Amino acid sequence: MIIIMENNATDDQIQQIYERLIDQGFDIHRSTGTTHTVLGVVGKTDSVDIRDYEILEGVHEVIRISEPYKLASRTFHPEDTIVKVGNAEIGSNKIVLMAGPCAIESREQIRKIAKMLNGTGTTILRGGAYKPRTSPYSFQGLGEEGLKYMREAADENGLAVVSEVMDRMDIIPALKYVDIIQVGARNMQNFTLLKELGKVDKPILLKRGMSATLKELLMAAEYIMSGGNHNIILCERGIRTFETYTRNTFDISAFPVLKELTHLPIIADPSHGIGIRNKVAPLARAAVAAGADGLIIEVHYDPDQAASDGAQTLYLDQYEKLVKEIDIIATAVNRTI
Amino acid sequence: MIIIMENNATDDQIQQIYERLIDQGFDIHRSTGTTHTVLGVVGKTDSVDIRDYEILEGVHEVIRISEPYKLASRTFHPEDTIVKVGNAEIGSNKIVLMAGPCAIESREQIRKIAKMLNGTGTTILRGGAYKPRTSPYSFQGLGEEGLKYMREAADENGLAVVSEVMDRMDIIPALKYVDIIQVGARNMQNFTLLKELGKVDKPILLKRGMSATLKELLMAAEYIMSGGNHNIILCERGIRTFETYTRNTFDISAFPVLKELTHLPIIADPSHGIGIRNKVAPLARAAVAAGADGLIIEVHYDPDQAASDGAQTLYLDQYEKLVKEIDIIATAVNRTI
Amino acid sequence: MIIIMENNATDDQIQQIYERLIDQGFDIHRSTGTTHTVLGVVGKTDSVDIRDYEILEGVHEVIRISEPYKLASRTFHPEDTIVKVGNAEIGSNKIVLMAGPCAIESREQIRKIAKMLNGTGTTILRGGAYKPRTSPYSFQGLGEEGLKYMREAADENGLAVVSEVMDRMDIIPALKYVDIIQVGARNMQNFTLLKELGKVDKPILLKRGMSATLKELLMAAEYIMSGGNHNIILCERGIRTFETYTRNTFDISAFPVLKELTHLPIIADPSHGIGIRNKVAPLARAAVAAGADGLIIEVHYDPDQAASDGAQTLYLDQYEKLVKEIDIIATAVNRTI
Amino acid sequence: MIIIMENNATDDQIQQIYERLIDQGFDIHRSTGTTHTVLGVVGKTDSVDIRDYEILEGVHEVIRISEPYKLASRTFHPEDTIVKVGNAEIGSNKIVLMAGPCAIESREQIRKIAKMLNGTGTTILRGGAYKPRTSPYSFQGLGEEGLKYMREAADENGLAVVSEVMDRMDIIPALKYVDIIQVGARNMQNFTLLKELGKVDKPILLKRGMSATLKELLMAAEYIMSGGNHNIILCERGIRTFETYTRNTFDISAFPVLKELTHLPIIADPSHGIGIRNKVAPLARAAVAAGADGLIIEVHYDPDQAASDGAQTLYLDQYEKLVKEIDIIATAVNRTI
Repeated sequence: MIIIMENNATDDQIQQIYERLIDQGFDIHRSTGTTHTVLGVVGKTDSVDIRDYEILEGVHEVIRISEPYKLASRTFHPEDTIVKVGNAEIGSNKIVLMAGPCAIESREQIRKIAKMLNGTGTTILRGGAYKPRTSPYSFQGLGEEGLKYMREAADENGLAVVSEVMDRMDIIPALKYVDIIQVGARNMQNFTLLKELGKVDKPILLKRGMSATLKELLMAAEYIMSGGNHNIILCERGIRTFETYTRNTFDISAFPVLKELTHLPIIADPSHGIGIRNKVAPLARAAVAAGADGLIIEVHYDPDQAASDGAQTLYLDQYEKLVKEIDIIATAVNRTI
Repeated sequence: MIIIMENNATDDQIQQIYERLIDQGFDIHRSTGTTHTVLGVVGKTDSVDIRDYEILEGVHEVIRISEPYKLASRTFHPEDTIVKVGNAEIGSNKIVLMAGPCAIESREQIRKIAKMLNGTGTTILRGGAYKPRTSPYSFQGLGEEGLKYMREAADENGLAVVSEVMDRMDIIPALKYVDIIQVGARNMQNFTLLKELGKVDKPILLKRGMSATLKELLMAAEYIMSGGNHNIILCERGIRTFETYTRNTFDISAFPVLKELTHLPIIADPSHGIGIRNKVAPLARAAVAAGADGLIIEVHYDPDQAASDGAQTLYLDQYEKLVKEIDIIATAVNRTI
Repeated sequence: MIIIMENNATDDQIQQIYERLIDQGFDIHRSTGTTHTVLGVVGKTDSVDIRDYEILEGVHEVIRISEPYKLASRTFHPEDTIVKVGNAEIGSNKIVLMAGPCAIESREQIRKIAKMLNGTGTTILRGGAYKPRTSPYSFQGLGEEGLKYMREAADENGLAVVSEVMDRMDIIPALKYVDIIQVGARNMQNFTLLKELGKVDKPILLKRGMSATLKELLMAAEYIMSGGNHNIILCERGIRTFETYTRNTFDISAFPVLKELTHLPIIADPSHGIGIRNKVAPLARAAVAAGADGLIIEVHYDPDQAASDGAQTLYLDQYEKLVKEIDIIATAVNRTI
Repeated sequence: MIIIMENNATDDQIQQIYERLIDQGFDIHRSTGTTHTVLGVVGKTDSVDIRDYEILEGVHEVIRISEPYKLASRTFHPEDTIVKVGNAEIGSNKIVLMAGPCAIESREQIRKIAKMLNGTGTTILRGGAYKPRTSPYSFQGLGEEGLKYMREAADENGLAVVSEVMDRMDIIPALKYVDIIQVGARNMQNFTLLKELGKVDKPILLKRGMSATLKELLMAAEYIMSGGNHNIILCERGIRTFETYTRNTFDISAFPVLKELTHLPIIADPSHGIGIRNKVAPLARAAVAAGADGLIIEVHYDPDQAASDGAQTLYLDQYEKLVKEIDIIATAVNRTI
């Protein structure tokens, strides 16, 4: 931590900061320049609220040098983390395809979709059992029953399963049926849930919150990792901006930026990233071109009859066409699918 | 719901939309203009995902006429809702003051603060027992023990109590000790939690999410209200923007806008709205001048030693000075404290 | 234009709106539903400020049906516009490459760069003569002298030239030396400048403003087009969001969305879109994968010594490697370079 | 400027940075900690693009200590600047009222409005002669003729005049008729214009750009001031966010924050800040409660017939009522009107 004093800071002011720092057990290196005095603070400054120093008299600015996340940081873990689930290796040279309906609607529906995905290169089946709908009057999901159907459908087709939990109480059933536990965008900073998932022995797919910075996404990953679970897959799905034509603004920079900051794999959710069916493929292609490790896409045999998010769900033939395009783009970035 | 067709939409396209609408049980009024055909859709369109129609061939735009919230809307409930808690009437002509520490740190601390607030005009004691900190390495709160201390401290001083729950599992203990249950900004769209709070017989203080629109805030209130609990207090606490000098941008427009859209009371949290102690008072004054029904403010006898958020917590004398200023401003908007 | 009345609007209120509309020369279709009365307004409503009706008593909402832009809209001009400049056809099946330094620094510099770009597939040379720097203390460009150097350098290598003007007074010199006149992000809504450019017989490269919606970008294009100049190239270069790791958030959705809304070509400026050299290539690849018609990229033989924007400027070999990757990605979207 | 090295930076990497810094004429203080080496850079670092160092190998982060603005900074000019215009002292203890129509529509209109404002406490007449409308099909202003009418109307009523210029070419006529030259939000970073205004002997009213940070607003002021004109009045008028109910989000924090950062006066434009007539007064009151030095408000004798922005323009009686409320609020912040 570095404290930069105002150019007219008094000795008394500097002395008071010294005392507070020493009180908290920190060492200080003082460097006096022509305009500013700068204090270098050494010690465990991670849990300091830097505003506590910023508001002191004579302080110009306080800067945290070390990132507040360690386990997620590439600095301390230079090699890529590869999360292995079923036949998939997320974060490897192979781009991983996750696909399925927004919501599990029935045993028949999910089995039909799982079968249909067989042979497309998809290795992970997605589908929601607990649906956090913005309207209290909408379909709310099949719950544990849905998870059971999805497990069966996946097993019949050699797929792994990813599904979302809403809070701590959903973890127990999820552990029985699911290979990857998903944390939705609205729960990215549900620290009570994150802490619990740190104790779990399953990979976590962590979606970026709608207004979360990349640093906050990494902090959320750190939260889980600090509990002992290091198998985290990050997921970009769009952030909120002033643009109104699209629901969210898919942050394509997230891929090169996160690749530099962290060793964790990062995948793209273009379906939620744009929310309109005929624009899902361009975003999916762009994500792979920018370095995404995988895609999670909503696919249904009859999107127009889907119980939720039909408007952003691909028809099978659209998905198959997309996979072919991804196959070409993968070679441009030295990868395969 | 209104469907506006493209100016070159074909009869076939219109026919297909007709069929889909009739399938779903809607009535249609068709109006053919010189450039556009417009379809007025009558029936229970609340749970329609308008994108399902927007993506159909020949459709230019789909507009939802009715707001997706009803119970929270002033249209159907023109008189102001007044939430009565202890001696406070939130939403009445009297501006309500809620104050206290960020976190309950000990029995002594919360008793000392409650006593100190006696005589300031404050009627509701705030304090956190479950602390959702962004860093997993920070103080996490006293839990139920803290709630017990706060109840005792409040009772000794004739105050009511407001405190936050993190998820469904925290509701049971909260019901024992708390008068108003707070839903934090990060949980504004935790629909699992909101649904549960709809069944509770205590007022809910619902904070606006960091990237939530006012419509979404009202939808979240609707979620709770649809479960039967109509005692909701809305709270503006700042939204995320590109401005970096302040943590959040306090949306002062929220007060006049929400007063028009809803009958629910709306209060201000200037402490989180700006996050810097010496700027809390200007924001608090502004909120009252703009029409806020109350304030929730972090106050501590020794903010510099507070376990969390000390940098945005007021000293008692700062708070007392603020209350005097608010008292003057209240008269400018025909209110009292 | 459609006016939706409140569900409790009175006949008097509706009558007043009728009178106002008839005063302004509009025809009205009235449709009375069970809950809402809806007025369809027919006539030249383009220049109506819809807020004038929104604030009237009894009005729930006013919706503009027709887009406020016509000349730029694909509805009225379904075929793609192709802007021909030198050997380049922007908007055709061929992805166009524009490259060069941020600023023209000297005759030698720009000649050296133009020569270096020969054989890379680049057809248009970029370079700034008037530099709108955020600090008044930075290098401000060579002005007309710089344009002369760039023209010479381009001619020696069979390239066309694109360069930015700052205001109306820069147009005359630009006309002498430049093939495409660029309007920078900060000038996207400089309507005085746009109007003047409507009279010019050169293509315009119009950059999206930092906080402009796509609709506003199209409105700015309309401004120029309404003056008679229909050769507009749109350019996505990132918008401002709360994310701080990158300067701007490159809006990758702009490509599929604009392709639907307009017939004008749309290119990408990944250099400004991210502002960090080693992340320019991922963004450039993503833009092409998402449907961009071309790229404008900062390239220099010695970026570290560049007078401005060196940090986001590519080395020649980085640029050549990128062109090869783009070549592969182009095939995935049925295009060539 | 401070350069923080990666914790695994090599001596070679540090050596290269040394050489580059010395090349550019800077002195360096090196401080070696247990984890990070920190380089303090001394010299004229204002015009350095810090990204040039951020992209070097082994660099973790580069921090600019000194603000990039000096003339506008309170650090170097602790006393408040008071801009004197006619009878008004902007930045003094007295809150200054500026009012008038959006656009000057005719000689009669502006004379009638000026007369009507007489006795309301207003000292400065506002009105636009050059109208930068977003639609090319809207009313574009009376130009110099309008300025002449406004001057006459102001003189008849003892008022001063503020009006906007669009680019460099409008400055000459403005100098003849106007007391304060306004720079609109869209021109806040029109550096060509700002530079020219630095040479002018009239106060400048500088509006914050729609997506400008407060730092950028101060940088724009610095641009003008560096040319010699130190009479700048800053103006908050709302920034763009994801909220759609209001046109802009009025940043109420701007007042306390700017008061701390700069000695320049700061006023509020609530009319553009919210864009809806019945919400202008709450915002105006809030601005004064938060510390604004003045207000600029759109007022017209017949807003419904105004040529532009009628929906956000106050009736005279609304304005008079607002002035009375402001009078009360002023006492709460120890000021008068």
